[in-house]
Amino acid sequence: MEKFKVVFKPAGKSVEVKKGAGLLSAAVSCGVYINSSCGGEGVCGRCKVIIKKGKFRTEPTGRISYKERKKGYVLACLTTVEDNLEVFVPRESRLDLSKIKKGEARLHRLKGIYSETVEVDRGKPIISEEVFKHSPIATKVYLELPPPTLEDTVSDYERLTRDIKKKYDVPIMQTGLRNIRKLGSVLRHSDWKVTVTLGKRNETTELVIIEPGDSSGENYGIAFDIGTTTVTGQLINLNTKEILGTKATYNKQIAFGDDVITRIVFAREESGLERLHHAVIDNMNSIIQELTEEHNIPLDQVTGIMCAGNTTMIHLLLRVDPTHIRREPYVSTANFVPVVRSAEAGIKVHPRALLACIPGVSTYVGGDIVAGSVACGINNEKRLTLLIDVGTNGEIVLGNKEWMACCSASAGPAFEGSGVSCGMRAVKGAIEKVEINGRLEPKIKTIDGGKPMGICGSGYIDLISEMFKRGIVNRDGKINQDLKNKRIRKSERELEYVVVFKNKARSNYDIVIKESDIENIKRSKGAIFSAASILAKKFDLTFDDIERIYIAGGFGTYINIENAVTIGLLPDVDRKKFKFVGNSSLIGAREILLSYDTMKKAEEIARKMTYIELSKDPAYMDEYMSSLFFPHTNLEKFPSVKKAR
Amino acid sequence: MEKFKVVFKPAGKSVEVKKGAGLLSAAVSCGVYINSSCGGEGVCGRCKVIIKKGKFRTEPTGRISYKERKKGYVLACLTTVEDNLEVFVPRESRLDLSKIKKGEARLHRLKGIYSETVEVDRGKPIISEEVFKHSPIATKVYLELPPPTLEDTVSDYERLTRDIKKKYDVPIMQTGLRNIRKLGSVLRHSDWKVTVTLGKRNETTELVIIEPGDSSGENYGIAFDIGTTTVTGQLINLNTKEILGTKATYNKQIAFGDDVITRIVFAREESGLERLHHAVIDNMNSIIQELTEEHNIPLDQVTGIMCAGNTTMIHLLLRVDPTHIRREPYVSTANFVPVVRSAEAGIKVHPRALLACIPGVSTYVGGDIVAGSVACGINNEKRLTLLIDVGTNGEIVLGNKEWMACCSASAGPAFEGSGVSCGMRAVKGAIEKVEINGRLEPKIKTIDGGKPMGICGSGYIDLISEMFKRGIVNRDGKINQDLKNKRIRKSERELEYVVVFKNKARSNYDIVIKESDIENIKRSKGAIFSAASILAKKFDLTFDDIERIYIAGGFGTYINIENAVTIGLLPDVDRKKFKFVGNSSLIGAREILLSYDTMKKAEEIARKMTYIELSKDPAYMDEYMSSLFFPHTNLEKFPSVKKAR
Repeated sequence: MEKFKVVFKPAGKSVEVKKGAGLLSAAVSCGVYINSSCGGEGVCGRCKVIIKKGKFRTEPTGRISYKERKKGYVLACLTTVEDNLEVFVPRESRLDLSKIKKGEARLHRLKGIYSETVEVDRGKPIISEEVFKHSPIATKVYLELPPPTLEDTVSDYERLTRDIKKKYDVPIMQTGLRNIRKLGSVLRHSDWKVTVTLGKRNETTELVIIEPGDSSGENYGIAFDIGTTTVTGQLINLNTKEILGTKATYNKQIAFGDDVITRIVFAREESGLERLHHAVIDNMNSIIQELTEEHNIPLDQVTGIMCAGNTTMIHLLLRVDPTHIRREPYVSTANFVPVVRSAEAGIKVHPRALLACIPGVSTYVGGDIVAGSVACGINNEKRLTLLIDVGTNGEIVLGNKEWMACCSASAGPAFEGSGVSCGMRAVKGAIEKVEINGRLEPKIKTIDGGKPMGICGSGYIDLISEMFKRGIVNRDGKINQDLKNKRIRKSERELEYVVVFKNKARSNYDIVIKESDIENIKRSKGAIFSAASILAKKFDLTFDDIERIYIAGGFGTYINIENAVTIGLLPDVDRKKFKFVGNSSLIGAREILLSYDTMKKAEEIARKMTYIELSKDPAYMDEYMSSLFFPHTNLEKFPSVKKAR
Repeated sequence: MEKFKVVFKPAGKSVEVKKGAGLLSAAVSCGVYINSSCGGEGVCGRCKVIIKKGKFRTEPTGRISYKERKKGYVLACLTTVEDNLEVFVPRESRLDLSKIKKGEARLHRLKGIYSETVEVDRGKPIISEEVFKHSPIATKVYLELPPPTLEDTVSDYERLTRDIKKKYDVPIMQTGLRNIRKLGSVLRHSDWKVTVTLGKRNETTELVIIEPGDSSGENYGIAFDIGTTTVTGQLINLNTKEILGTKATYNKQIAFGDDVITRIVFAREESGLERLHHAVIDNMNSIIQELTEEHNIPLDQVTGIMCAGNTTMIHLLLRVDPTHIRREPYVSTANFVPVVRSAEAGIKVHPRALLACIPGVSTYVGGDIVAGSVACGINNEKRLTLLIDVGTNGEIVLGNKEWMACCSASAGPAFEGSGVSCGMRAVKGAIEKVEINGRLEPKIKTIDGGKPMGICGSGYIDLISEMFKRGIVNRDGKINQDLKNKRIRKSERELEYVVVFKNKARSNYDIVIKESDIENIKRSKGAIFSAASILAKKFDLTFDDIERIYIAGGFGTYINIENAVTIGLLPDVDRKKFKFVGNSSLIGAREILLSYDTMKKAEEIARKMTYIELSKDPAYMDEYMSSLFFPHTNLEKFPSVKKAR
């Protein structure tokens, strides 16, 4: 089989592939990440690259203009290698894998949630014994065993378990042959002073690790939120409950498709599942490596990993085929996944460390939303509480300690900066705040304070709300072309508003919002608002009956409640009811990592939560259609917005 | 490094070894099994071989006579290879690995035990529901799951466990990632009709295997008695509880030493533990292979293995270092061993099959004696019961359902045919019955009815009893040299009685019993009798208080109670109290294989049995010294023997 070398510029990475190999997968295989939303179907047009040298074959596509074609543009996913190639990946096609800003602000907001349940003001720890019992997934215990004598000849293993059971409540205990095999020598070489790591594997306690001497002071775990778009990990001292650091990166699976469905489709391709699996495991391993290096923690002191993620993400993480999730009747392989060894999934920490995944409610409501519910303490709340988690799949939970129901809305990735012309995720260069003055001039703020590159979710909320308030956009989402302003113009038969001209931007194009972008955001906000409305209605409730509303999700590190109400994303109720929680899924994962009792609560939540399927509900479709206005068809539902007009 | 080829005749096997390699290990490495009791210390003199060609070095030893040396005899364990060698292994040094006779008789006696607890006469199964609940270590369950619908979208794994929990009482359930990974496709390819194997791993139920379709009809297990001398396996239909076959072979570890202590010493040598481990695993694998081939059962239908063995045997089987067993304070690594996967120990059945070992009481009272106690039903007995298990280590259990105590006696291997000049195990050619008439002529019976090769344990009991009754041997064990008979003669300064002249034997020597052999048997029977006596005395009991005496062990497939009483091995009580059980350890292993409840009982027995250490007890030494007569110093203890004289 003939082989060719493909060089990707400007990264300078290269790979040798067989004749006829796909260019997109060639890029992925050598670590060149190219945007791709559709899973290589030639649909999204985001994987544009320029072939500088060499022969290739490419399928015709409407996504490449005549001008572009003349310049050598092709869609990587439709192109096969027929020669040694030199390929240029233009900036707009590059997947920026630089880290999300470490986000002190985010962490501060994360803390916010606990100010509700424990008294942070009185200097108590964020995660308090009052909220949950400290019993991490893996606990290190230092034991000084009485050496055997002629009067006490109980065997090594029983001697060990006898001591453990004397001190701890572990009715059911087991260990592997590997530990039994080394037990005799470890005990004697350490003069009967050893550290054992006790792990929770569902109802059973496992003697996971046995080490000589006292290493009980060093025990770490990592909580993960495995999002479709972003993977976030948090290093936790399992002894002190201290948060040592948080890192986030893009989910490398994005290279195989932006959303869950395209990835499930990709998983069916040859070694597709393996590649998706390795992508997220790579993410996790690099987060782990960076966190542990920064804190000088040897990898083998990490004994437990706790993951929250939607059902598909958990399947891919464990290399479980997700195919059936997207085939009627939409059933996953497992919502409750047994605790396994991290090494079984390829995660590089202590080889015997445990890996647990937070149980999900259904195929569409995963462990991330259960973790979020735990984090918000809905299961302990007397008050009626609503949790809105805005993600590619918007997820809504309603309830209190008595009952819980949830639903899922196909919000799409617009609030995550995807599928909108100048959208981007909430990373450096993203516009996260916008105000527009009377002269229709915007005042913007980027996440890092630098020159803007694009607009993230919270930026779009502000932008559309301000445009609406200034009359640039009408209730239907159309731009008022009667306004005479240099920023309002028509481009390729579509009206747009220029937020930043390219001379002030960190891009070689103007940062604009098009009518089609507004339409996209409108659909997203409509899907979420109507899902929340219908969920409440199902239980004969209105938003006024709800006493507390948590907002979580990945649409930015900042959100202006007033503007979110103005565009009709959030209901028009007392603003004091709203509470930001940021990444509630990560908070929940951390709590569960630190407390087996909380895992039991998560299981209870996953079992008792009622999943309401909206896609079959005509009332949802009606409400959705009514929500495709700013703020809503029925202005009476948004009295404060009505009043302000 | 220079290498030489060593050829072993008559087997014709050869091996290449480095210059200076030991001849005994060279033999083992190419599968030539040579007798060796002392673990290669040059002490037992059993590994005699004749070097026909080539240079060698050998250490001087008193075990080789001048005549032998001239013929080329050396001890293999003291000889190193310095040249290409041709080595002849004489018959007496060969370890006969041919099978013990399948032993219908033995099985009949095995049945005997159950005639006590269940009514075999009324045609009930040997192992009855009345005795223990049928709940094998691995149960296959056929499930026809309701396929998912839009109304029932529970995940595959929960669908499976939901159905299992509906039908069976399995509160704590777990499975491995491997099963989860294949679950989705197995369920769909089999149209939701699958067979799951549920395994008992201590308190947890594991979903061990999932297979498409209905294979629940085929589920097999193997019960093993791992003896120091003999490894016996029994193939069981786990569904019907039927015994399909029984096979026994010598424990290949014999090549590294006859008894437990020499093997523990050998385990310390380079790769000694590995070799001991592989030896017994080889034994088990060949038994498994033969049993399954004979019954046309694919290996992957074997899902559970249950092992009874002494503590050292179990350590070696699992490749756990046994070193500390023989070092003060004589502590094993584990008496309660967790259930593991058979594959972890190298046993070739279904790769996910479970392997359980019956828990032991202490370093010296292993799971074999616990299994024996279960088999004899001591834990269910109201009557005071004694179990005497005669092995290299004689083990005694006394008690009933209220309490149990046990002790161990260093009987030595004489009753197993070892350490006595013409002794052999109870295999083809072994003399198992002897009568001596008034003319001092013996009438013998061999196990296979063929020409005799040597004498097994039951043969020695008969022989000495008859010699005693005919006055050939006095109470002290000395041969009466005043009797004029061609069979009584002096050889190498020692008196002996010729049982079979070589012209009538399947050997090139006369089959004799020497005074030193009688001394050996006397010590063995003395150790056992005195251990039983002192154990009873500890609880202020006499043999008359005991209502039932079970005899088990490896000294033959037959035993004459009357003769055993005559020589003082068994107490002189009502003969109706005695009951043969043969291999009680194997029976117990089978029961436990078939019943998790019985495993729980075994654990209870192992926990509650009191181990009485005799080696520290002066009363035991006194009683032992008094037992070194036939039948005993104090004839009052053996009234029927006294009366007969």
